[in-house]
Amino acid sequence: MAEVGYVGLGVMGSSVTRRLLGAGHTVTVWNRTREKAEPLLAAGAAWADTPREVAERSEIVFTMVTNTAAVRAVTEGEDGILAGLAPGKIYVDMSTASPANTRALAETVTAAGARMLDSPVSGTSITVDQGKASLMVGGDEDVVERARPVLEAIGPKVIHVGPNGAAVTMKIAVNLSLAVQMLAFSEGVLLAEKTGIAREKAVEVMLASVIASPMVAYRGPLVLGHPDEVWFDCHMMQKDMNLALELGRELEVPLPTTALTNEFLTAANGMGIGERDFAVLFDVLAKLAGVSTDILEEAVV
Amino acid sequence: MAEVGYVGLGVMGSSVTRRLLGAGHTVTVWNRTREKAEPLLAAGAAWADTPREVAERSEIVFTMVTNTAAVRAVTEGEDGILAGLAPGKIYVDMSTASPANTRALAETVTAAGARMLDSPVSGTSITVDQGKASLMVGGDEDVVERARPVLEAIGPKVIHVGPNGAAVTMKIAVNLSLAVQMLAFSEGVLLAEKTGIAREKAVEVMLASVIASPMVAYRGPLVLGHPDEVWFDCHMMQKDMNLALELGRELEVPLPTTALTNEFLTAANGMGIGERDFAVLFDVLAKLAGVSTDILEEAVV
Amino acid sequence: MAEVGYVGLGVMGSSVTRRLLGAGHTVTVWNRTREKAEPLLAAGAAWADTPREVAERSEIVFTMVTNTAAVRAVTEGEDGILAGLAPGKIYVDMSTASPANTRALAETVTAAGARMLDSPVSGTSITVDQGKASLMVGGDEDVVERARPVLEAIGPKVIHVGPNGAAVTMKIAVNLSLAVQMLAFSEGVLLAEKTGIAREKAVEVMLASVIASPMVAYRGPLVLGHPDEVWFDCHMMQKDMNLALELGRELEVPLPTTALTNEFLTAANGMGIGERDFAVLFDVLAKLAGVSTDILEEAVV
Amino acid sequence: MAEVGYVGLGVMGSSVTRRLLGAGHTVTVWNRTREKAEPLLAAGAAWADTPREVAERSEIVFTMVTNTAAVRAVTEGEDGILAGLAPGKIYVDMSTASPANTRALAETVTAAGARMLDSPVSGTSITVDQGKASLMVGGDEDVVERARPVLEAIGPKVIHVGPNGAAVTMKIAVNLSLAVQMLAFSEGVLLAEKTGIAREKAVEVMLASVIASPMVAYRGPLVLGHPDEVWFDCHMMQKDMNLALELGRELEVPLPTTALTNEFLTAANGMGIGERDFAVLFDVLAKLAGVSTDILEEAVV
Repeated sequence: MAEVGYVGLGVMGSSVTRRLLGAGHTVTVWNRTREKAEPLLAAGAAWADTPREVAERSEIVFTMVTNTAAVRAVTEGEDGILAGLAPGKIYVDMSTASPANTRALAETVTAAGARMLDSPVSGTSITVDQGKASLMVGGDEDVVERARPVLEAIGPKVIHVGPNGAAVTMKIAVNLSLAVQMLAFSEGVLLAEKTGIAREKAVEVMLASVIASPMVAYRGPLVLGHPDEVWFDCHMMQKDMNLALELGRELEVPLPTTALTNEFLTAANGMGIGERDFAVLFDVLAKLAGVSTDILEEAVV
Repeated sequence: MAEVGYVGLGVMGSSVTRRLLGAGHTVTVWNRTREKAEPLLAAGAAWADTPREVAERSEIVFTMVTNTAAVRAVTEGEDGILAGLAPGKIYVDMSTASPANTRALAETVTAAGARMLDSPVSGTSITVDQGKASLMVGGDEDVVERARPVLEAIGPKVIHVGPNGAAVTMKIAVNLSLAVQMLAFSEGVLLAEKTGIAREKAVEVMLASVIASPMVAYRGPLVLGHPDEVWFDCHMMQKDMNLALELGRELEVPLPTTALTNEFLTAANGMGIGERDFAVLFDVLAKLAGVSTDILEEAVV
Repeated sequence: MAEVGYVGLGVMGSSVTRRLLGAGHTVTVWNRTREKAEPLLAAGAAWADTPREVAERSEIVFTMVTNTAAVRAVTEGEDGILAGLAPGKIYVDMSTASPANTRALAETVTAAGARMLDSPVSGTSITVDQGKASLMVGGDEDVVERARPVLEAIGPKVIHVGPNGAAVTMKIAVNLSLAVQMLAFSEGVLLAEKTGIAREKAVEVMLASVIASPMVAYRGPLVLGHPDEVWFDCHMMQKDMNLALELGRELEVPLPTTALTNEFLTAANGMGIGERDFAVLFDVLAKLAGVSTDILEEAVV
Repeated sequence: MAEVGYVGLGVMGSSVTRRLLGAGHTVTVWNRTREKAEPLLAAGAAWADTPREVAERSEIVFTMVTNTAAVRAVTEGEDGILAGLAPGKIYVDMSTASPANTRALAETVTAAGARMLDSPVSGTSITVDQGKASLMVGGDEDVVERARPVLEAIGPKVIHVGPNGAAVTMKIAVNLSLAVQMLAFSEGVLLAEKTGIAREKAVEVMLASVIASPMVAYRGPLVLGHPDEVWFDCHMMQKDMNLALELGRELEVPLPTTALTNEFLTAANGMGIGERDFAVLFDVLAKLAGVSTDILEEAVV
């Protein structure tokens, strides 16, 4: 069993930490607001006062934060993770952030004698809870092998994708399809609905069809009603789309469906429903089709 | 066991007919070119000289043809199915064609004393062969129940979607996502590839992710190499997209990702690779990204 | 001076007829509803009871109607123009309709011993009234030369574009830019407005810039307020976009901005404001940006 | 006559400087590479060794550089313009750069006792040479009035748009239409060409139509052949599109045609023709339509 550190206890970070605790690892945690850590502390995790201290007390330290700026905030400075790393340690960033930043960070980490991996999770916190998550990993083979036992405690499927930055790039490459598939799904549902088929029936048929990815299976039913808890709102989804679009311009890969769908996420924001799960792409389109939805009525859009 | 008729023996129609024969039904067939019927005749099907004769000899007669014009060609005129229908018979159209035409046809069939259903298959001929296909059905409840035993011989999942035309509308609503998902998937693969990840690896990771619909799982690997046999080329895919777009204009539902993706299918045609599976959406985008592919090299595009 | 006939007295047709009368030609007219002809009859035009009679009494007969179906309605049948044509006569269709229909019609006309031209007007009825309209003409050179004196009475710029169907194709090729330019213009105005610049000022600056086509100069100010009279509503604009998109698929030319903009016209229809000038593309986008407009408030969209 | 400074002597900056000299102003210049200044020095301009020195020797100092980073490079640091400003001086940025940076810069300039305006030019260097350019100006009214005589020497039409940042925002809002209009124009030309109309004729007709903005009139003929000199390549155009898209996301204004067209600029880059004028949007589309062009043949795309 390893000494593990975890920085960033949002919904996903908390699920991952619970998996690590469940596997018998010792886990030291830090989060910007301590209250989110309480359930984990009650479950056996230890608290550290800074990200640096987490790194000092761990063989392998993870981060899972919102964006590139947040990664910088927890790694840099005198209280940052970099200041607590030492030879033999491994730093694993599970955030979806800029691949260029990941590569630069990996160099800094290596210069400090430690090693780095990027390892975003594919799936939701539910997938993690069920022990079914798959992890993409970017970094050197030997480091991946050293980290593997801990990574496999998080999810059974650990895929070594390539060098540092490769895994987070793959995450971005995957995630652009989330929003595009959701918008295309919405087009189909609205077409069915305006032809006279009940929305529930349309969703049922589409979920039984060849287009029903796990994303569609999970998020499709949200067009019938959103839960109170929001897992991935339009702003978070748009952050990933922007990473994809920047990468596309840099690498000279046109991303037509990504670019177009991103503007509908902007529309969700403009219409004041961007705080909801990005399944509200359906509601944006419903507005344009003259179809009523709960979300639109609540928001008096 | 029933007296069943089948008109239209393409790849899908032949698979369905084999299922019907396998279930012990008596099947009379007709096809525009007789040679495609030979394997089925060898397997026990009977030949009729016209669609009308098929209808005359069957309690329930199916059609599965290319488009609205082809449906008209086999139903109208003195040799057409309509001329062979009689009270008590059921006509089931499994084609993906205009829902308006389906509804009009259903009225004509009812006026002739028979009944009609629309019942497109979700999935490929492989799904049908494996006995895993699901059938959407449009029409009146009592007719669906009368036809159910025969329909369940084709696939175990028979979903009654709504009145005449509803099933074919759902098929169109589902199918627009096929091409859109494929284009978004291609954007992701090319992003990964130009960042230095091997195309094979990128496909592997994406197939293990939440965006891997059965469509993506089946068609995604085609970006690594196309088989000789083509199941659903750009022209066929575009036919379905056009049906969706027409319906969208008629019902006043904007279909942004459908409309955009459809232009990339047109590009595949313009570049001379439209005879291939519509997975060549990848190759169109690869061209724009300056990435080489087998298809592009063969075609000297 | 010539014996001229005119069928189809909408806003544009009436303007053209006034030009012909003003130039001293004898003009016989017909329209589906006679009341629209009254001002022209008062101005010296003669009434005929059928399109056929118009053709019988004229050396050169024009049509200017809504779409392909309307062209057929006034040319075919025993009361149609074709029945009134004779050797030596010229039939000029000024409608924006299917180029394929135009070419087929030209063959029928030629078979009847007469000749045909297609000659849509570029510009609005105002341009025609001011004597500044330009006419594109499709057909054989000698026929164009015979018709030229009459055509020049309509507008001073008569451009022979190519064979039958070429002019109407050019009209379609031009018109797709109308809607696209309007949507792009709207994007710019809304960007300026949400940054704090008054909408009036934004329009003023854009009209003084290099993007100010005559279309933008004319239609841009409509985002500040629509007149009661509607010259080119979303349905008419969409008809032209559909002609472009059909032609694009047939000729294998991808039309990405046309396809996308067309879906926003559909949205205008879906939102219930499609009866207004297609400048309401601005209002559709304003809705998505959370910006209020007169049209949106009136329509309670 | 005023003591004027000019920093940034690209094609446009040089044209503006010539206008200022022609009006009798004393002009001190600086450019990253001195050779571009030679023709202006020969025409009477004086050279300064740093941007700071230009500011020290001028009552009003202009910059016209490539992007936000370049604006920072010439304004910040000990050799930068800010270090040379003093009470009573006016700094005018004519670059198309980030409006947020402009507003921040204006505050710094004001804190230093000087005043700032943003004043991008609408039009090309040719428009400037002909004395027909229009200038949008952002900043306080009194500063605009003080600068007006010098601004009017550049172009006769000086429009005060709003506070600091407003003019550059308007420039961005205008410029997004440049690329979109070009792509829509290309769709029309290719439609005409594949229907059998000569490309020259199609361009001629479109330039005589209501969609012929000054941009279309200037750039449209480039589809018939590009000059050697490139005024506004795909990278520069994309820089402006990116500014628009960032602003759109920040202000929550969806920009569908901008986002889509931007991906075609990326395609031009990916195809290796991004160094040419952005009129190569035509060539990108031509490739997809299977149409040959000089640019495509040269580039062996």
